[in-house]
Amino acid sequence: MTFDGINPTVLAIDTSGPVAGCAVLKGGKIVHQIAMNHGLTHSETIMSAVDAALSAVNLACADVDVFAAVAGPGSFTGVRIGVCAAKGLAHGAGKPCCAVHALDALAMNFYGFDGLCCPILDARRGQVYCAAFDMRQGLPRRALADAAEPLADFLARLPKDGRLVFVGDGVPVHEAAVREALGDRAMIAPPSLRDLRADAAAVLAARRPETWVEAKTLAPIYLRAPQAERERKVKLENNA
Amino acid sequence: MTFDGINPTVLAIDTSGPVAGCAVLKGGKIVHQIAMNHGLTHSETIMSAVDAALSAVNLACADVDVFAAVAGPGSFTGVRIGVCAAKGLAHGAGKPCCAVHALDALAMNFYGFDGLCCPILDARRGQVYCAAFDMRQGLPRRALADAAEPLADFLARLPKDGRLVFVGDGVPVHEAAVREALGDRAMIAPPSLRDLRADAAAVLAARRPETWVEAKTLAPIYLRAPQAERERKVKLENNA
Repeated sequence: MTFDGINPTVLAIDTSGPVAGCAVLKGGKIVHQIAMNHGLTHSETIMSAVDAALSAVNLACADVDVFAAVAGPGSFTGVRIGVCAAKGLAHGAGKPCCAVHALDALAMNFYGFDGLCCPILDARRGQVYCAAFDMRQGLPRRALADAAEPLADFLARLPKDGRLVFVGDGVPVHEAAVREALGDRAMIAPPSLRDLRADAAAVLAARRPETWVEAKTLAPIYLRAPQAERERKVKLENNA
Repeated sequence: MTFDGINPTVLAIDTSGPVAGCAVLKGGKIVHQIAMNHGLTHSETIMSAVDAALSAVNLACADVDVFAAVAGPGSFTGVRIGVCAAKGLAHGAGKPCCAVHALDALAMNFYGFDGLCCPILDARRGQVYCAAFDMRQGLPRRALADAAEPLADFLARLPKDGRLVFVGDGVPVHEAAVREALGDRAMIAPPSLRDLRADAAAVLAARRPETWVEAKTLAPIYLRAPQAERERKVKLENNA
């Protein structure tokens, strides 16, 4: 596999989880990246980070070939902030967008790993957003379908042999349970490879031009209905 | 291997190559990171990046447990900028420093890879700075000694079987030669995992407190004498 073919200029935004980040890929290089895990509101930080990134590399929105956003699964509000930011920038510049799957982008941290990369995101309510990817060929290939489920259910779905590596913001919460269930088979990503990074999203967007869409059609990826919709459903059912 | 034990607050600086970066590790998380590959002079960008990083996470220098710098091999001027910045900050705050080896930090991008990670840095004069690390246990374990040598000499030193992954700023320059010599055995890091990242340096510094030193003793790591010293030697020999 070669990356010679990565020529598009990509601006990637991620506000889907605890980290707010943006990255610029240009000429096959990550020319700028920022990742902030401050606990601050992403809506207050992301646009100034985007502005700083583009200014730093002397790019206008018109110079960007595609605006990528990590479109979920993740925090509902966070996902919508990132998707709307990318959509607005792309719409204004008349450029396409690309929805990058959060679990795919996380798995990119273990490009080429000889086993399954298992991203787990804290989905609250006792669940994780999770999936497993075969990484041996380089880019992630989905080995287990996405789910929002209790960690134990996910661990039970994993194959009984082979190496596994766990990434994502669910790791600090669930590390002990993962180790107890899987022992030495399970590797835990170090802090430097644990979080979703916008640069990985930029590379995925560049490698998959077939997934670029018109700005207005960019949509979040949900594995579960948002809380407001779940509550509405319950209310409607109770009133029925 | 666990990262539960990573408790120190680390500020890591890297200006050793084309990327100027800094990262803050706190409470076992990378709370802030910036990476700039703009072609700008690192001496002009790094201190404002450090200032922005510490401000973003509300830290003063006194709150940092160790100041890490990527100490080389790399650009002579770049290495000195990063080492001096870390040294100055640490000295002012009365805190220790940690010299992180550039090739070690680069290898961290392939934590857990089932083969050798081979960082190659463009050393000019037809040479690369290079080494090979066994990654299977997680953290890098040196498998081949550091060298400044022509790429062909390095490739000839590599074992004849097993998987290899190439990282570093020498990759874009030497990718074709690596592929021709090694074929499918050699994997090339994607752009998102190709560059040295300050977050990897922060994690290495946190994991190796035995390498922390007094600020005044922090020194660059050179694999070759700087050009000025080489020229002086030639001149002295010619005059002898």
